[in-house]
Amino acid sequence: MTMTVSGEFERIARFFAPLAKGFDGADGLNDDAAALPVPNDQDLIVSTDTIVEKIHYLGPEKPASIASKLLRVTLSDLASKGAVPVWYTMNLALPAKIDDAWLEGFCDGLARDQERYGVTLAGGDTVKTEGPVVLTLTGYGLAPAGKILRRGGARPGDLIYVTGTIGDGALGLECARGAFPELNWNARYYLVQRYELPDPPVALGAALIGIAHAAMDISDGLVADLAHMADASDLRAMIHAISVPVSDAAAEILSDCPDRLPSVLSGGDDYQILAAVPVAAEDAFLSAARKHSVAATRIGEFKKGSGVSVLDADGAELALAQTGYSHS
Amino acid sequence: MTMTVSGEFERIARFFAPLAKGFDGADGLNDDAAALPVPNDQDLIVSTDTIVEKIHYLGPEKPASIASKLLRVTLSDLASKGAVPVWYTMNLALPAKIDDAWLEGFCDGLARDQERYGVTLAGGDTVKTEGPVVLTLTGYGLAPAGKILRRGGARPGDLIYVTGTIGDGALGLECARGAFPELNWNARYYLVQRYELPDPPVALGAALIGIAHAAMDISDGLVADLAHMADASDLRAMIHAISVPVSDAAAEILSDCPDRLPSVLSGGDDYQILAAVPVAAEDAFLSAARKHSVAATRIGEFKKGSGVSVLDADGAELALAQTGYSHS
Repeated sequence: MTMTVSGEFERIARFFAPLAKGFDGADGLNDDAAALPVPNDQDLIVSTDTIVEKIHYLGPEKPASIASKLLRVTLSDLASKGAVPVWYTMNLALPAKIDDAWLEGFCDGLARDQERYGVTLAGGDTVKTEGPVVLTLTGYGLAPAGKILRRGGARPGDLIYVTGTIGDGALGLECARGAFPELNWNARYYLVQRYELPDPPVALGAALIGIAHAAMDISDGLVADLAHMADASDLRAMIHAISVPVSDAAAEILSDCPDRLPSVLSGGDDYQILAAVPVAAEDAFLSAARKHSVAATRIGEFKKGSGVSVLDADGAELALAQTGYSHS
Repeated sequence: MTMTVSGEFERIARFFAPLAKGFDGADGLNDDAAALPVPNDQDLIVSTDTIVEKIHYLGPEKPASIASKLLRVTLSDLASKGAVPVWYTMNLALPAKIDDAWLEGFCDGLARDQERYGVTLAGGDTVKTEGPVVLTLTGYGLAPAGKILRRGGARPGDLIYVTGTIGDGALGLECARGAFPELNWNARYYLVQRYELPDPPVALGAALIGIAHAAMDISDGLVADLAHMADASDLRAMIHAISVPVSDAAAEILSDCPDRLPSVLSGGDDYQILAAVPVAAEDAFLSAARKHSVAATRIGEFKKGSGVSVLDADGAELALAQTGYSHS
């Protein structure tokens, strides 16, 4: 694998090679390919995401935050499939304005998250562009062979669980854009942070194997992703709006502006796990969540049929105009 | 892995999902990750490349050719490491001008090469950009565990071999830009084709394991890549200019313009294999090359020392001003 821009071997040595240290298969980023040793009876699980300046992030964010979000979004995908993330590769298309200070911040963010999540850079490619920054990260994880958790595995009667709190990312983006001027500073800061720096429950992922029937991460919004899971499983998902866990900050917004409930239920950027848990495995699931200090909340169940129903406290079906968030 | 652009699920189903057909691990591109089943005692070999419109290609090329070159450049890396390519993932950042006809041509090119090289799409991500097209392809191959061929494995006395002919890619680019107006049409067409559509000796790659001490593909130019191998192996490479194999078309140019020898020796885009072959394995190497119908030519040998010497017919060292081609 080549990380070669004219005259930029020095940048590779300075910024990227340290991130590959300790993993022999990367060969110090000096070679054209990485060798990933996959243990017997494991599959390599691969997930990849691309983000573009001014579309997926504004541009002036701290480079360390951009790096962390890029990495975490992919780790969230891997974990929700039951995989333990181990390596990643990175492809950067960089305009001339990206200087060494930016790269240093970017790689600092990666270095911190490598420590946090136990992953190592394995290779990549760095090229010039005359357009916006385009960043691609491909994550590699390990899961027991043939056991990857798919979104299509849910069965009738399975309980629908989510981790963490829902809606913070979408409300955080609204805060960053100036919405909710009455909201106190602490709540606003919390929500913007949740948007800029997701905290996916990566450690829980591997524990879901043998427990959950289906799992995925919530990135396009709870309702849209639930619809994907219901559709892939050929089932109907029924959830109770009142059961959907929200943060104190989100609760504060909802108490003042109940019309923002769709932002919570259908907004994107949650990076929490959505899981279909059979009744018989509910205790095992809750015990695994506790072990990894992850909040897990039951919000509904799968039934025969198709589509998603969101019920209010009286059992009436809520009409949600906004059914999904587009990562465009 | 998500291939999601707002409203483009249909494009995924229409253009990309057919390329993932037959590989269960891709789950029809409907899920967030692919599961790659790596056989026991094999390593997964990963190589990734990014190309940018107007930097790595001009833009108006046929989309099928852009696709083929994107894929083949990565397959070349994998093969030169001794790996058998099996899967690939793809990340596309596309401006609004990219229409369905372009995507259809692009995916046709991939479909043809999937057949040719025996590889399957495993996943990816498609996003919007307001800048130039940015295309990332990551190739996955298999090689016996711990046996990946590195560029640093050459030993003193090893013979230096190259496959195919050298310099066609660089001369083809010059032709495409209008150089060599006297050259006959057939030769010009041949060279431009070699630039636009490389034909790396992918099938030979796996046969190099247990035979070559070191290998890499020639992408930055013979002399520059030889310097990388010599440097990584802590040796001196000595080659004979007259031994370097050239095509009839290149020979025609050189007979009229001998000053273009540096374009041949130091130009880029050859995508041939450079190998360090121990004397004892020379017959086995030549036999493997014959078996895969790949031309292999001995051009020199490794010695103690450092750097690269290119000798002329009289044994005098050639001074090459241009020592490498920059993929910027």
